[in-house]
Amino acid sequence: MKTYLECIPCFLKQALFAARAATQDESKIKRVLDKVAGFIPDIPLDNPPPETARLVYGAVQDITGVSDPFKAHKEKSIEYALQLYPKLKSVVLDSEDPLRTAVRIAIAGNVIDFGAHQRFDLEAEIKDALKMELAIDHYASFKQSVEKARTVLYLGDNSGETVFDRLLIETLQKDTIYAVRDVPIINDATIEDAVKSGIDKTARVISSGCDAPGIILNRCSREFLDIYRTVDVVVSKGQGNFESLSEEKRGIFFLLKVKCAIAARHLGAREGGMVLKDNRLLVG
Amino acid sequence: MKTYLECIPCFLKQALFAARAATQDESKIKRVLDKVAGFIPDIPLDNPPPETARLVYGAVQDITGVSDPFKAHKEKSIEYALQLYPKLKSVVLDSEDPLRTAVRIAIAGNVIDFGAHQRFDLEAEIKDALKMELAIDHYASFKQSVEKARTVLYLGDNSGETVFDRLLIETLQKDTIYAVRDVPIINDATIEDAVKSGIDKTARVISSGCDAPGIILNRCSREFLDIYRTVDVVVSKGQGNFESLSEEKRGIFFLLKVKCAIAARHLGAREGGMVLKDNRLLVG
Repeated sequence: MKTYLECIPCFLKQALFAARAATQDESKIKRVLDKVAGFIPDIPLDNPPPETARLVYGAVQDITGVSDPFKAHKEKSIEYALQLYPKLKSVVLDSEDPLRTAVRIAIAGNVIDFGAHQRFDLEAEIKDALKMELAIDHYASFKQSVEKARTVLYLGDNSGETVFDRLLIETLQKDTIYAVRDVPIINDATIEDAVKSGIDKTARVISSGCDAPGIILNRCSREFLDIYRTVDVVVSKGQGNFESLSEEKRGIFFLLKVKCAIAARHLGAREGGMVLKDNRLLVG
Repeated sequence: MKTYLECIPCFLKQALFAARAATQDESKIKRVLDKVAGFIPDIPLDNPPPETARLVYGAVQDITGVSDPFKAHKEKSIEYALQLYPKLKSVVLDSEDPLRTAVRIAIAGNVIDFGAHQRFDLEAEIKDALKMELAIDHYASFKQSVEKARTVLYLGDNSGETVFDRLLIETLQKDTIYAVRDVPIINDATIEDAVKSGIDKTARVISSGCDAPGIILNRCSREFLDIYRTVDVVVSKGQGNFESLSEEKRGIFFLLKVKCAIAARHLGAREGGMVLKDNRLLVG
């Protein structure tokens, strides 16, 4: 997905939110905004938004000196999700179609996102997710692909959401590799966050090698790219990964909550909607 | 009210909205955003936001060549409000306290604002306004001041809202001067818009001399300032006028809908709330 003009004010909004999380020094926060404003004329609109988000969060880090402003938030999100885990595990196991239920819970978990939204109600979200119709529902294709697959590459997104990913990976029962960000960015999961979420019990956790809040392939490690190219099924979580991989040729299943009007228009799904999209199928 | 850091992404959002109203040429719209981004490091945070909004809408005009991108919207708003006028006039006249009812309708009319919000439902707004508790309610003081006054200066805000202002001015039954923007900016009323709304039937319409979406006194005409300083009562409509006059010493009654979280915090009223504030009184 390219950068739309609507993304530009949003980069500044994200810069402000992250800078406020990093420091209370208003003059430093203003310097972050000034620096991000300075990028704007040079943003290539052909780039996916996570490419610019990388620069935005880099500016926050450079100016405030804080490399992980959402560290405490991330820990809390993981702890909270782990508290919900046993109950959700039972919900999945007791359901008529455990895979479908685990998919819905994994998509609902994508609401934990400090990039696009700053407030959310996770329990209400999960409750809704269990009954809400998906805005794009390629579950049949997903199920078929998973059944045939031996190996899965699962692209993580936010910390906390990771616990719900774990639930889906446990339900897949495949040889799964879970790839996360190389360094802290927004509240996205790193290897440390994935391990705290217990994903290492059910998948091999690796870094994508990329420091953006998305999977930008030419910034990923050789190890990651080898897996990405040879694995049977790729599951991609969240809007950042969607934004950076939406034009890809290889089969990818995108699981996400639609976070803004621009992504909604691009996907042909409503804002706030839950999406399970097979990128080899036309929408619908 | 000073410029808060939260206003900065909002300036870009407003620039985008106005540029889209002016042109469909994406490259011109991008140039508007680039130009506004270029202002950001130089924005004095001590300035009220309308001072910067003036530059934002100036950039839209310079780059797109369109001086009044909301012209058609403004005309529609006025036509629509004029259709509602006869019914609302009866509501005022038939009510127990016509002044109070006219005040509520005038505040509700402030929802017609293309600066802060881009969507609104005017009829629902008026219905709510007639029963909703005001977030700040200095009506007793307002009523007392109006009863004693001979002359009123009424500071207009948006086109369409003007028709509701007319209703309040008719109810005041005072020697009233209605001041509007010197040139088109956002959907704010100019002399032409005020006359289309029929305000000239009940008040003398003048330009404030100021081209910002607010009343910035050092940009106003001598004629306006003479009136402002000598009149018995000043009624100020909308958030833009509030932002630019909130620190003033002279008595002003601010009538507005609270349009954003920042103004809400500044006023001590909830976002979306209706405010009638006597600036000589503490909030409450």
